[in-house]
Amino acid sequence: MNSIKIFSPATIANISCGFDVLGLALDNIGDEMIIKKINEPGVRITKIVGQKLPLETTKNVAGVAALALLNEMETSFGFEIEIYKNIKPGSGIGSSAASAAGAVWGINELLGKPFNKTQLVKFAMEGEKLASGTLHADNVAPALFGGFTLVRSYNPLDIIQINTPKELFVTVIHPHIEIKTVDARAILSPTVLLKDAVKQWGNVGGLISGLYTEDYELIGRSLEDFIVEPIRATLIPNYYKVKESALNAGALGCGISGSGPSIFALCKGENVAKTVALALKENYKKTGIPFDVYSSKINSEGIKIIK
Amino acid sequence: MNSIKIFSPATIANISCGFDVLGLALDNIGDEMIIKKINEPGVRITKIVGQKLPLETTKNVAGVAALALLNEMETSFGFEIEIYKNIKPGSGIGSSAASAAGAVWGINELLGKPFNKTQLVKFAMEGEKLASGTLHADNVAPALFGGFTLVRSYNPLDIIQINTPKELFVTVIHPHIEIKTVDARAILSPTVLLKDAVKQWGNVGGLISGLYTEDYELIGRSLEDFIVEPIRATLIPNYYKVKESALNAGALGCGISGSGPSIFALCKGENVAKTVALALKENYKKTGIPFDVYSSKINSEGIKIIK
Repeated sequence: MNSIKIFSPATIANISCGFDVLGLALDNIGDEMIIKKINEPGVRITKIVGQKLPLETTKNVAGVAALALLNEMETSFGFEIEIYKNIKPGSGIGSSAASAAGAVWGINELLGKPFNKTQLVKFAMEGEKLASGTLHADNVAPALFGGFTLVRSYNPLDIIQINTPKELFVTVIHPHIEIKTVDARAILSPTVLLKDAVKQWGNVGGLISGLYTEDYELIGRSLEDFIVEPIRATLIPNYYKVKESALNAGALGCGISGSGPSIFALCKGENVAKTVALALKENYKKTGIPFDVYSSKINSEGIKIIK
Repeated sequence: MNSIKIFSPATIANISCGFDVLGLALDNIGDEMIIKKINEPGVRITKIVGQKLPLETTKNVAGVAALALLNEMETSFGFEIEIYKNIKPGSGIGSSAASAAGAVWGINELLGKPFNKTQLVKFAMEGEKLASGTLHADNVAPALFGGFTLVRSYNPLDIIQINTPKELFVTVIHPHIEIKTVDARAILSPTVLLKDAVKQWGNVGGLISGLYTEDYELIGRSLEDFIVEPIRATLIPNYYKVKESALNAGALGCGISGSGPSIFALCKGENVAKTVALALKENYKKTGIPFDVYSSKINSEGIKIIK
């Protein structure tokens, strides 16, 4: 096998209570990439369709992640990457993660899988660092593992795959405004109240428990964020109205996707997810801000080969 | 049924990463109580064996908890309570919780179970408030539910019973020094670093996940406390040496039980728990401080009727 075409999913990080540790993968939204083994060593980005992004390897998240992998395994040959972007950079649903994770996953396949998924997360994080300035794994982990993932620890890196209930769907609204991750991080306070932190980890415990026992009500009750949402919500026009309309339309819970501006709603069943999508469209029309809305089941396998 | 004899277990709150939310019940350490229906209304503590504690109803945690229950359900009759204390007050393994939870559980049985366990937790918390000044549920919840419990939220009160892996055992060392919960709380900072809070809720997620998947290694890796242990460890002589010897003897993890001074170690299997008990004894002898050590499996049913 010298060439591979893959699908790399969009992802939602944080999931309300799990700031910087929880993430999930979407099923029908993501980038496509073609990765080819070539005789010349190194990594070349030969084509990017759908978005204006740098082709220069060291300035492209996929390129940087690929180089991090090849740094650990010297090869006499190299790789060419074509990227077909369906995820808009800056949308808050893991655009850079999809490119970075896709590159290392594809190269690992062509190499005969010398690295495990946690090692691939480590390489892909180098791409994330280029994009946002910090080594974070909460998008690349679900892109690579699929389903719900927990970054239990960064040092050493410890990724836990969490059970994903079958009937769980996500609806996402992406308002077309720009929020840079670095700015969304800068407005957070470096300290938090212990009493809020306790409420937050109570909800992390509740959410993980609900995912294992497939208790949708518990999942919904646990989707609370006492620490990040109150600050970042100010960056997203109409945020609380969107949330209210999602919950009124039957969503289990609703929160900011990653550092925004996208907003996600978890739903039990595809019908509820579609009803929520309609409610969000109705609601956001009033703002005059352009937006996209999509619904998806949770992707349980992560990045995959496509024809 | 007009009289009932019950066993009310000792409990370990916090469990390293789960400050104020996680707890577990021990199996072979606990108080015994006899609760009798009497013609006269109200609650009377008629006997306390094993410890010097107030018999006056409104000054006794069992009495206060019982009154909280009867406040919600008027009866023409009342209850007498005898308490046989095996858990020393101030030991950090839920002495007040055992009395408070035992009283409300026993009365609820004699009344024909009008209240569910979460409601009983609420009543028992009034006893905890008398003992420590705060309404906390992380000891009374596992005493009432058994196994591992999560207090996801206090308002509204939401107690989640977590799966308990069969081979999980606990070894506890109780150094005979006094640490008042109120003092152990006062030394905590009201604020914490966001980056430490993130590590803490990553571990809560890891621990809950490990409990459901019965992944003992993951349980062990998740037993880290970046927030409370560094502060409270200073109150317990030889704490880090004890922890080191527990881990060297094969414990999955080790931490402060509740607000101390007891220290707990989670172990896979009874043999490891016994080996750890020996190591802790050897270690603590050197301090010259008297102590007790016990090993127990996790109690999966909570308070129960005994002959």
